[in-house]
Amino acid sequence: MPYVNIKVTREGTAPGATATTAEQKAALIKGVSELLLDVMGKPLNSTFVVIEEVEMENWGVGGVPTPEYRKRLREQERQGK
Amino acid sequence: MPYVNIKVTREGTAPGATATTAEQKAALIKGVSELLLDVMGKPLNSTFVVIEEVEMENWGVGGVPTPEYRKRLREQERQGK
Amino acid sequence: MPYVNIKVTREGTAPGATATTAEQKAALIKGVSELLLDVMGKPLNSTFVVIEEVEMENWGVGGVPTPEYRKRLREQERQGK
Amino acid sequence: MPYVNIKVTREGTAPGATATTAEQKAALIKGVSELLLDVMGKPLNSTFVVIEEVEMENWGVGGVPTPEYRKRLREQERQGK
Amino acid sequence: MPYVNIKVTREGTAPGATATTAEQKAALIKGVSELLLDVMGKPLNSTFVVIEEVEMENWGVGGVPTPEYRKRLREQERQGK
Amino acid sequence: MPYVNIKVTREGTAPGATATTAEQKAALIKGVSELLLDVMGKPLNSTFVVIEEVEMENWGVGGVPTPEYRKRLREQERQGK
Repeated sequence: MPYVNIKVTREGTAPGATATTAEQKAALIKGVSELLLDVMGKPLNSTFVVIEEVEMENWGVGGVPTPEYRKRLREQERQGK
Repeated sequence: MPYVNIKVTREGTAPGATATTAEQKAALIKGVSELLLDVMGKPLNSTFVVIEEVEMENWGVGGVPTPEYRKRLREQERQGK
Repeated sequence: MPYVNIKVTREGTAPGATATTAEQKAALIKGVSELLLDVMGKPLNSTFVVIEEVEMENWGVGGVPTPEYRKRLREQERQGK
Repeated sequence: MPYVNIKVTREGTAPGATATTAEQKAALIKGVSELLLDVMGKPLNSTFVVIEEVEMENWGVGGVPTPEYRKRLREQERQGK
Repeated sequence: MPYVNIKVTREGTAPGATATTAEQKAALIKGVSELLLDVMGKPLNSTFVVIEEVEMENWGVGGVPTPEYRKRLREQERQGK
Repeated sequence: MPYVNIKVTREGTAPGATATTAEQKAALIKGVSELLLDVMGKPLNSTFVVIEEVEMENWGVGGVPTPEYRKRLREQERQGK
């Protein structure tokens, strides 16, 4: 009876998308459920998967919100670091 | 100091509703808080209850999103399985 | 397909117990599952309940760990506050 | 590699705001990340912070939703309790 | 920057094991991280996976703790249902 | 009524410790609670903090369990990368 919670930032990662698409969600659900079946023998019917999308400004890393973090990374790359 | 997190799919289960109603939320909060008082002696004031509604396509079971899962169940029932 | 997560401090609340007892856990599971059936029509089989016990020193309230918080409450009571 | 999840009710606590502001979120992310660095030596880059805002009627305390709970507190104060 | 939380009951699903094995945990971590890379382009380094094992008596389904639930399922099967 | 959940790997980060110490836990609880007071005006008494320690092999990053991930980082550093 596994329970899997997947949190991702709300943003488009597929062409033209501004959020996780229904196809991507279905692929995550299928992939995780089959993984638990393959690795631990958990029947597909007994696995719950809950996907939560989190606004970019609500997700922090490196001590700053994600948009600021990525901006810094890009600047570091530009400076050859 | 219990903390209770309840996750449900966002859909109407009361007549005419398209989401969990305020009355249902209040009933869940009351019921869970009183349960913790009855079973474990936890004062009502010390229990937090957080209800989260999850979009149907973000909740997976049986390896597929909930709408697809329910569709399959209905088809199985129709076929007398 | 509700998912309910109940977090409580690890301590005895039944006579002679030093942790939540199996009977208390079963009562919480039964009570929460029936609540979701009564309030929202969720079938018992579709509700997962996960109970997690948290060490007293890992749970904070009032800016301090629970044992310290309770000690302060008792002192306030003794001083007639 | 700490992971911190902060849940607050969705309401304005800054002047004129109706929800947590971007500045407040950035301050929470900065503060928590620096706390984990100071107390446990965790590098800023290895800490994830996820802030979730919960509708007032979805958050229960004292056996009732938050708006009802606060109304009761105000009434108790008015009555000199 | 995905965060994935996997909760399973603490029990052996590999031959001779009484809990999830280190190999199974590594396979879950690898599988989920690669899934997020494949489906959403998330770099492996930016995905956190946290596996939590929950005692059988702390996990409820069907309104009862897991051991009782499975006992009922076995009895139903024996009775040809 | 904020709720804060802090997950860290179970390991010693203070001299001689093999897990998060009681002092570190108290410092995290105090720091987070005061942060929510400073940034959002949340009273100390209304903030719950729950600290969870996760076994190293249960925490994955970079597609592998934490011990393996750190070993790789050390090897990369040794090779001047």
